[in-house]
Amino acid sequence: MEKKHKIKGLIAAAFANYDQVGNIDLDGIPAMTEHLVRQGLRGIFICGTNGEGPSLSTAERMAVAERYIKAIDGRILSFVHVGHSSIAEAKRLAAHAESIGADYISAVSAFYFKPSSVENLVDAMAAIAAAAPNTPFYYYHIPAVTGLQIDMLHFLALAEQKIPTFHGIKYTAATLHEYQACLQYKEGKYDILFGYDELLLPALAVGATGAIGSTYNYAAPLYLEVIRRFEAGAHEAARNLHFEAVEMVQLLVKYGPIPVQRAIMKKIGLDLGQPRLPLTLLDEDNEQQLMTELEQSKFLDHVALYQ
Amino acid sequence: MEKKHKIKGLIAAAFANYDQVGNIDLDGIPAMTEHLVRQGLRGIFICGTNGEGPSLSTAERMAVAERYIKAIDGRILSFVHVGHSSIAEAKRLAAHAESIGADYISAVSAFYFKPSSVENLVDAMAAIAAAAPNTPFYYYHIPAVTGLQIDMLHFLALAEQKIPTFHGIKYTAATLHEYQACLQYKEGKYDILFGYDELLLPALAVGATGAIGSTYNYAAPLYLEVIRRFEAGAHEAARNLHFEAVEMVQLLVKYGPIPVQRAIMKKIGLDLGQPRLPLTLLDEDNEQQLMTELEQSKFLDHVALYQ
Amino acid sequence: MEKKHKIKGLIAAAFANYDQVGNIDLDGIPAMTEHLVRQGLRGIFICGTNGEGPSLSTAERMAVAERYIKAIDGRILSFVHVGHSSIAEAKRLAAHAESIGADYISAVSAFYFKPSSVENLVDAMAAIAAAAPNTPFYYYHIPAVTGLQIDMLHFLALAEQKIPTFHGIKYTAATLHEYQACLQYKEGKYDILFGYDELLLPALAVGATGAIGSTYNYAAPLYLEVIRRFEAGAHEAARNLHFEAVEMVQLLVKYGPIPVQRAIMKKIGLDLGQPRLPLTLLDEDNEQQLMTELEQSKFLDHVALYQ
Amino acid sequence: MEKKHKIKGLIAAAFANYDQVGNIDLDGIPAMTEHLVRQGLRGIFICGTNGEGPSLSTAERMAVAERYIKAIDGRILSFVHVGHSSIAEAKRLAAHAESIGADYISAVSAFYFKPSSVENLVDAMAAIAAAAPNTPFYYYHIPAVTGLQIDMLHFLALAEQKIPTFHGIKYTAATLHEYQACLQYKEGKYDILFGYDELLLPALAVGATGAIGSTYNYAAPLYLEVIRRFEAGAHEAARNLHFEAVEMVQLLVKYGPIPVQRAIMKKIGLDLGQPRLPLTLLDEDNEQQLMTELEQSKFLDHVALYQ
Repeated sequence: MEKKHKIKGLIAAAFANYDQVGNIDLDGIPAMTEHLVRQGLRGIFICGTNGEGPSLSTAERMAVAERYIKAIDGRILSFVHVGHSSIAEAKRLAAHAESIGADYISAVSAFYFKPSSVENLVDAMAAIAAAAPNTPFYYYHIPAVTGLQIDMLHFLALAEQKIPTFHGIKYTAATLHEYQACLQYKEGKYDILFGYDELLLPALAVGATGAIGSTYNYAAPLYLEVIRRFEAGAHEAARNLHFEAVEMVQLLVKYGPIPVQRAIMKKIGLDLGQPRLPLTLLDEDNEQQLMTELEQSKFLDHVALYQ
Repeated sequence: MEKKHKIKGLIAAAFANYDQVGNIDLDGIPAMTEHLVRQGLRGIFICGTNGEGPSLSTAERMAVAERYIKAIDGRILSFVHVGHSSIAEAKRLAAHAESIGADYISAVSAFYFKPSSVENLVDAMAAIAAAAPNTPFYYYHIPAVTGLQIDMLHFLALAEQKIPTFHGIKYTAATLHEYQACLQYKEGKYDILFGYDELLLPALAVGATGAIGSTYNYAAPLYLEVIRRFEAGAHEAARNLHFEAVEMVQLLVKYGPIPVQRAIMKKIGLDLGQPRLPLTLLDEDNEQQLMTELEQSKFLDHVALYQ
Repeated sequence: MEKKHKIKGLIAAAFANYDQVGNIDLDGIPAMTEHLVRQGLRGIFICGTNGEGPSLSTAERMAVAERYIKAIDGRILSFVHVGHSSIAEAKRLAAHAESIGADYISAVSAFYFKPSSVENLVDAMAAIAAAAPNTPFYYYHIPAVTGLQIDMLHFLALAEQKIPTFHGIKYTAATLHEYQACLQYKEGKYDILFGYDELLLPALAVGATGAIGSTYNYAAPLYLEVIRRFEAGAHEAARNLHFEAVEMVQLLVKYGPIPVQRAIMKKIGLDLGQPRLPLTLLDEDNEQQLMTELEQSKFLDHVALYQ
Repeated sequence: MEKKHKIKGLIAAAFANYDQVGNIDLDGIPAMTEHLVRQGLRGIFICGTNGEGPSLSTAERMAVAERYIKAIDGRILSFVHVGHSSIAEAKRLAAHAESIGADYISAVSAFYFKPSSVENLVDAMAAIAAAAPNTPFYYYHIPAVTGLQIDMLHFLALAEQKIPTFHGIKYTAATLHEYQACLQYKEGKYDILFGYDELLLPALAVGATGAIGSTYNYAAPLYLEVIRRFEAGAHEAARNLHFEAVEMVQLLVKYGPIPVQRAIMKKIGLDLGQPRLPLTLLDEDNEQQLMTELEQSKFLDHVALYQ
């Protein structure tokens, strides 16, 4: 299990793509993968929130993971999300991910019954991780979705003892002081990937070196330039470029993240189809209005500048 | 599809039962069923919250439903809960439930991605219900678990139009004014089963005639006597007996509903094994203390009085 | 100061009334009081949530309380709400209420800084109650407004020890099992007045005998008839009449409780003026639509039937 | 009244200080002010959350503000917080603050009745600001305390039109993308002071130049050095120093912010007395344990290094 300790760079949380009748479009995965590799990404996070993992059947999740890993062909890193409301299904997904050569697995907490304590959460994650004993494990922390308010420093201290393959956290929360404390836990023993795209610049200030997110599917070059500017100490220039992303995120707030991002992907030539219920796209009027605002924002032209 | 319009009586939300290594104990289901039939119940709600449906694999859920329906053998009603974070899996479970002769199906909302509107929720429920086109459908409303705050009167108005098999709601919330309004919607067009055991007596006052809950697994006779007293206008006597149940629920608050109820089931001879993570039992000390409090409460002796 | 241990009947949570320039309209209080006495109420709750106590200055609250107590002139009971974000101001209000002859005082928890424990809450309430050492004290429990989730049984056990003048709770929450447990605490040692009007009927089933609420300002006769029917065991008749109130409350949900209730008061001849910011009335269009719906609902005609 | 458009530097949110019997200790204010001036602060925020403004009577708030402004004597900036659950009282506080020469006023939203919309919030803030027509106004945004989830960009757009004295926002939330968008609103038209001390470093990355907070009462020199390092592009050095503050904040989480910070102030020679209920200090055992941890953390020694 050789693994670079800390992942540097951006990882795309790949979108689910469906065909016209709502089945998973496995044949679209190779083109998507090529696009992501070309964007300069360091890896692909498969079947996560953005990939609608929890809306897919177990069989569909396995098929998607296989196709991505095959398409990636070792060029960049693969992360397979195996979180499920049923730990039993999560274990099956974990074992499968290992069997197909995933570089990493990751799991969100059970989300119907919610862990009542950090001990309980770690026990559940340990059970999942044990089903893929040779694959490093990231806990996926996303309290805005799971509703779980658990102290991540306490989690680290227990995961360290109880999960032999524990590698780090996909940290999707705005609490950057806790994020910094996790990054500096035992002098940086674990890899804490940042998951809140519109906070990437401030996360860099507290030490982020790797990040996973949905906007990296189409705006990775812009964010990579933000990173370059920040590292060079060009704070104002970094800020102004980051602001382009922050402004675009206001569109996501206005129209919903799923419709906006699927519209952007379509504009760059990757038609993902309709998301699965309970997610939906916009009605025709709102879709039209969104398209007009997207044109006006010139966000994508801007992204293209940094390709 | 002959179905009595309104279900009168109590329905047990059956507990999951596991063997010593944590597998579903299918062979324990017949004895459980006999116990429930003897308690005077009107039906069994299978693979719901209490039955840890969301913690089981799809295959396990199908096996459990089959075994219960076979054991019930038409003597009382069967409700199969098919809710899942994946609508695709929920549809498979619904079709399967119909194929094995379930009297009713029911589904909770998707709970990872949450419906953004009542329209969206109804569309998702319609998709599930359509997979079992000959089986009446109950929406399972449990906002404390799903976090979903949706107006149930608005839901009724849309479900009426969009779900041909719509039969009612399993209503698990303390908002009895909304519950009453649902009961009286179009002069009682739908069956609104009440799901909050410790509020059964006040729910009777606003018109409840049927209820689904976990405590009915072991205390149905006591609740049936509460109903008899209330109907006879013996309000104080009804209240005093209902208070026995309310007091017992304070134990559930203190020790957690899962450990307390599994301990009670064990005391009455039905060993359910360990629940599945993230649910857990108590540590030894707390277990001992709970047992002492259970002995002192004489709740079960009291229940036995009404058998 | 006659003090029956348990208060039977309905208490109106009086509305704040303002003149045309937004000052408190003290001269409107006598007419309001006569109206409330005529409605068959047992008492008036002054400067509570409905009376916009927290929006008034301390001087205004004192003036309002004085005027009400003078207008009531011992005919029915007076409750002065003295809760404030500042315990120092609450103590001044409590001492003043005692000096003007209030029958009871009541206080909500501090609501900027929130008590961190039940002990802390009881200490704060004890400090306020001690400023009116000869006036019985009700704690005002309204978690939907204060955000405070505190176990009321635990509260009772501590208040019993630490607040010599402790008399009971104004309980404004839908958790009727806890409400029942409070009513039956030490065989009914304390008076637990119910504060959620649209749940009055179910609250009767668990033992409510007294209630405080806003709709009793104009619909007390209807509720008194609900009580009579319930006590006579005429459950269906009680339910159907209670449903009139439940349906009216749907208007409150649709248009906001403040605009609807102030519109109703105006229709029955008591113009309360504009509420104080951040509360507001409706814009003209919505006001018109509300008035149309109020006419159609015939709720007030119905109320008049039971006068 | 010198008014630079954008305030650069740190502003201490001064603590309330009480004498032995719980009265406001006005005579302690001059020494506190000298301490804060010596710390290199740019201003003092008076009677805010940390100053327990909402726990003081109106008369006490006025007396505290007067004493601070007199003690400051124009050397640094004064901000008087005038927010109150009663807009009427808030207006009195605002007019008083202007009359005594406050440089700025600020108000939190009403917090018993909560604004139902951004329009409503702006109207309420406009009413308060109008009572001090010659004093620039900052809205105090602190959703974790008020529970108010309002879009601050929308707020800016309305405040710009409706509040002639509008100057900016005291922004106390972790959502740094919204903070950045507020900073860059109309090319930086308003001053958005940052209020979440343990996020100061990441806030610098998105453009913060001024900040208000409680830890600046005793650790301003450390934070000023963080700012110097960040501006010099010494990211790792800035991060490591900021981490000292982040670690100290873990003590605040463990023991509560009020007890820890009052203990720190006492250690540096400023005894603030007991906070007012519902706030409290620790019991003796926990106090002792906190003191031990404070000694071990050497945080204050570290702070002293940068004096």
